[in-house]
Amino acid sequence: MACQILPTISGPADLRRLPARKLTRLAEEIRAFLVDEVSRTGGHLGPNLGVVELTLALHRVFDSPRDPIIFDTGHQSYVHKLVTGRQDFSRLRERGGLAGYPQREESPHDIVESSHASSSLSWADGISRAFSLSGQADRRVVAVVGDGALTGGMTWEALNNISDDNARRLIIVVNDNGRSYAPTIGGVARFLNTVRTQRSYRMLQRQSDEAFGRFGGALGRSVYRGIRGGVHGFLSRFTNTDELYSNLDIKYLGPVDGHDLGALEHTLRQARDYGAPVIVHAITQKGRGYQPAIDDAADQFHAVGQIDPITGEPVSAAAGQSWTGVFADEIVQLATQDPRIVGITAAMLRPVGLAKFAAAFPDRVLDVGIAEQHAVTSAAGLAFGGMHPVVAIYATFANRAFDQILMDVGLHRAGVTFVLDRAGITGPDGPSHHGMWDLALLQSVPHIRIAAPRDAARLREELREAVAVDDAPTVVRFSKGSVGRELVASARLRDGVDVLRWGSRRDVLFVGVGPMVELAIEVAERLEAQGIGATVVDPRWVVPVPATVLELASSHRLVVTIEDGIVVGGVGTRIRQDLRAAAIDTTVTELGLPDAFIPHGSRAQILAEAGLTPQRIARDVVAQVLGIRVPHARPERGVESERARDAERAPDAATRSV
Amino acid sequence: MACQILPTISGPADLRRLPARKLTRLAEEIRAFLVDEVSRTGGHLGPNLGVVELTLALHRVFDSPRDPIIFDTGHQSYVHKLVTGRQDFSRLRERGGLAGYPQREESPHDIVESSHASSSLSWADGISRAFSLSGQADRRVVAVVGDGALTGGMTWEALNNISDDNARRLIIVVNDNGRSYAPTIGGVARFLNTVRTQRSYRMLQRQSDEAFGRFGGALGRSVYRGIRGGVHGFLSRFTNTDELYSNLDIKYLGPVDGHDLGALEHTLRQARDYGAPVIVHAITQKGRGYQPAIDDAADQFHAVGQIDPITGEPVSAAAGQSWTGVFADEIVQLATQDPRIVGITAAMLRPVGLAKFAAAFPDRVLDVGIAEQHAVTSAAGLAFGGMHPVVAIYATFANRAFDQILMDVGLHRAGVTFVLDRAGITGPDGPSHHGMWDLALLQSVPHIRIAAPRDAARLREELREAVAVDDAPTVVRFSKGSVGRELVASARLRDGVDVLRWGSRRDVLFVGVGPMVELAIEVAERLEAQGIGATVVDPRWVVPVPATVLELASSHRLVVTIEDGIVVGGVGTRIRQDLRAAAIDTTVTELGLPDAFIPHGSRAQILAEAGLTPQRIARDVVAQVLGIRVPHARPERGVESERARDAERAPDAATRSV
Repeated sequence: MACQILPTISGPADLRRLPARKLTRLAEEIRAFLVDEVSRTGGHLGPNLGVVELTLALHRVFDSPRDPIIFDTGHQSYVHKLVTGRQDFSRLRERGGLAGYPQREESPHDIVESSHASSSLSWADGISRAFSLSGQADRRVVAVVGDGALTGGMTWEALNNISDDNARRLIIVVNDNGRSYAPTIGGVARFLNTVRTQRSYRMLQRQSDEAFGRFGGALGRSVYRGIRGGVHGFLSRFTNTDELYSNLDIKYLGPVDGHDLGALEHTLRQARDYGAPVIVHAITQKGRGYQPAIDDAADQFHAVGQIDPITGEPVSAAAGQSWTGVFADEIVQLATQDPRIVGITAAMLRPVGLAKFAAAFPDRVLDVGIAEQHAVTSAAGLAFGGMHPVVAIYATFANRAFDQILMDVGLHRAGVTFVLDRAGITGPDGPSHHGMWDLALLQSVPHIRIAAPRDAARLREELREAVAVDDAPTVVRFSKGSVGRELVASARLRDGVDVLRWGSRRDVLFVGVGPMVELAIEVAERLEAQGIGATVVDPRWVVPVPATVLELASSHRLVVTIEDGIVVGGVGTRIRQDLRAAAIDTTVTELGLPDAFIPHGSRAQILAEAGLTPQRIARDVVAQVLGIRVPHARPERGVESERARDAERAPDAATRSV
Repeated sequence: MACQILPTISGPADLRRLPARKLTRLAEEIRAFLVDEVSRTGGHLGPNLGVVELTLALHRVFDSPRDPIIFDTGHQSYVHKLVTGRQDFSRLRERGGLAGYPQREESPHDIVESSHASSSLSWADGISRAFSLSGQADRRVVAVVGDGALTGGMTWEALNNISDDNARRLIIVVNDNGRSYAPTIGGVARFLNTVRTQRSYRMLQRQSDEAFGRFGGALGRSVYRGIRGGVHGFLSRFTNTDELYSNLDIKYLGPVDGHDLGALEHTLRQARDYGAPVIVHAITQKGRGYQPAIDDAADQFHAVGQIDPITGEPVSAAAGQSWTGVFADEIVQLATQDPRIVGITAAMLRPVGLAKFAAAFPDRVLDVGIAEQHAVTSAAGLAFGGMHPVVAIYATFANRAFDQILMDVGLHRAGVTFVLDRAGITGPDGPSHHGMWDLALLQSVPHIRIAAPRDAARLREELREAVAVDDAPTVVRFSKGSVGRELVASARLRDGVDVLRWGSRRDVLFVGVGPMVELAIEVAERLEAQGIGATVVDPRWVVPVPATVLELASSHRLVVTIEDGIVVGGVGTRIRQDLRAAAIDTTVTELGLPDAFIPHGSRAQILAEAGLTPQRIARDVVAQVLGIRVPHARPERGVESERARDAERAPDAATRSV
């Protein structure tokens, strides 16, 4: 379909000027655009096809950016980008191209970048309070929240605060498609599903026009009665008399057909003009207008790689086995052998590789919804009750349950295994999705043991070792994407430390963390070619640091640690502290990711920027061994002279510990 | 009152054998015991006076420990301790004495130790699932949750999972006294308050006996209808027809008078024998039976120090101004000058020192309930809207919102100031309350700036500097208790680094973090007495590390950092990494707290165990300077020979950088 209208929309004002009759055509153009573009670049296709009309209606009714619109999560913001001046999707999610989520640098229409679910109501609460406090009470704040995100505890915390009766103009639009990544689970979902399956919901919306359904039909009235208690519903509806409701309300509008532009605009306008917080419940269809997505029960079109736009089939041949796939197979093996193993996912059964386990043992895999805190603490409970839970989440989401990992699992020495997928640099999803913090964060939990497999065989092996530990938390963390070639060890030392290669001399000891072992081998080979002896080990279990690593360090001149996590407080730091505690003073150089938020880009690109390439590391280590002892040195005020002195005495120092 | 019955109760079985008529007397004895003992030792008095009958009823109806009972939070477990064989309260919360919270080492009746609120429903969900999966479905799990803890998002996440229709025997007892630390806030609270103020609730309980109120009076029926939707209430009560409720239920019993033993036992027995999850709503009075506590609107009896048991007045003279008090005064000053400053507390207005601010500017202090995640993210929203929020929480609770600090505040460079009270070792409250992790955790947030004031003047000054930063998160963290004497600097260098003393020679540079500056001065004076030059600096802003600290390090032989946080990933680590990046190779010794959960005890005791005394540090540093270069060395397998070699070459090395 040729785009005729879309190119004329350079911002919301153009959209508002558009006659209503042209909107249907525009929606069609946007859908065709999305299928064309995203099938080429990859990205979140299904969710955006579902919010075309909703986004158009929002921008026609509200005055963004004066009225901030927050997307929860931000993966449903492609249409928003299209109508706020961003129609070049050719490099979507590539460095230099549009981000896959809202990004403030791109546009003043973008507010929240992080794309960790369930935060939008808190953002909206804060922004609208600021507007109230600063005499801008006429500005509206809109949070568009997926039904899946409602299972996150933050929404409860926010609603409990928003529910205060007041004159703030805060509009919560529930984008209810019945599935977040997978079908939404739990009681919230069952309720929403009940609403969705009511054939009368469209009619109901019309009825609710008047006084929010108070004077509508029986169904409308009961919706109103039930809903307006909002969060109070937890222990709500104490009585049928209306008096008790006073001051407890979050007004509710809907449900409204999320693809009926007229109905949407009408309802949103009501919400806009109401002088207090209000919930608008919009029913949408994920993948709307694109048959392959609609037909797909497994929700594979939530996020896609390159696909054929007609058939929806992946374009490129499979890139080899993924880390997730290795885990998915192995956990079924382990679960078959050990009936105590239970899998836990937070609304991502398939992405984290628990689908096969669930198919084989339906009672032993729990999907708790987007609720990482509950996932972790209920796992502690399961362990107390005699099971061995395996909590499989993305590394970046472990950050959401640190206190629970520390206090509920760590303090209680619960035998819980955390399987952290997408650890390290993930690439196109940007700063909120890199798994950079997990190592630094989790190594601060007493008793914890952390494994970072370097290849598929190690993943299987370390997972097996992890689930055998019943008196402490264990972590197995691995990357996004394809697992590389097998890296066979030349020796396994005691403590389970693998030696990948022995140096011709004991010059440099490389300690590689997980996928960085391969990089370490490449660097080592370059060094050997220059006559520098380089040993490479994989501790396999990086925390606590195996004693063997310390011993090897004592017999080398220099230790270089390489990890795909932040250097600040990372595994390298830990190794150095343990060396020091063991009275070994071999110099340690810690390499890893910088203390920064890293934008979207390819994994290779980002690692290169962080200096994590064989060339760069080899060059720096050679320089260091030859006597310029500090790599990656940045000039600091006042230290130049120190560095000069340092260089003078370096040759002596470099040979000191040989 | 002489205890006659209490000494005969050595466990729940004795309690169950007791004739009902003796229970009232037992309850009186327990109250008298608690007032006597806790007024002597200090501890959580008010909450425990409120749960005497509830705890007795629980242990008579359920079969602990076969039926685990979880207290949320654990500060309401004193009565539980008394009736499970622990009646020696003479050293409550002292090292060697009873813990102030449940502790597994003390008793098999204790399950959850952590005492961070809102986790119990997740624990109970996990344990009861484990019982179901392992053929022990007849075992019950009881969670006793305070109304304040219900505002935490974890409870929503758990309820959404518990609400699944199933045969698990999970009993949620809501201990509703209308105030957690302070009056509970928000919609949940308003609803509960409505229930509480219904004079008819006692009668209602009787009525609800039959079929959970389905056939009770009009009020009972509506309670049943409204409540059984449980968490679904968020968007619940879609219709009045009963069919839609199928499979959505969490059964509800109550409200019941939490001081009526007969009613409690009756209701709990119903709950016990029901074959699915059920909520029991008990109305209790905090401080019950102790007039000073009941009369106290400010809830000062939630936790007390030593008090006069008759009057409730504090026994000891005030121990000088507290850190909290200094903050409380200064924030009012700042708020007066800057209308953009907003205070946020998570249900602890008074303990974190925001009460004066709230009194002066009622609209500008928000109590969000026990909801740290929302506190942080709504602060990011407030900052986006032009305000400068000051989030005042205990250091240990910052762990609960790490992802929000990282993603919502850090990534968005929001100008939010975190004031972390009770940082470092807190003492009698044990492992879950020490503020040990905040420095390691928060320094991993890009852009963040962390201040650790050493005295009252610095707290005022650094707070002022913090609220002036509008493009990054700032942290001001300080200790529990009394602020010490003023530590006047001999010089303030550029970057704001304070020099407390210059060494007679440039041997050792001490970098003190906050309250550790005073310790560093004491150590330095000891060293000087032995002819070793010791400079002491306070960076004031410890993260990012001021360039001046790096320069000073380059001119000394040894850097010793002292912090009251974990050494792993702590500030010392950061300083060493920055030195290395700046090509300065002065040896760094990082001192701080160990990678362990530290049990309750006095602060001095715990610091001494961690080696943080002037004697110990001075001895180690002297040894190090004289050539035994590594302090606190622990023997490790295989490194003895290395250490011997190290000692041999030490003298040379020690003079190397002079």
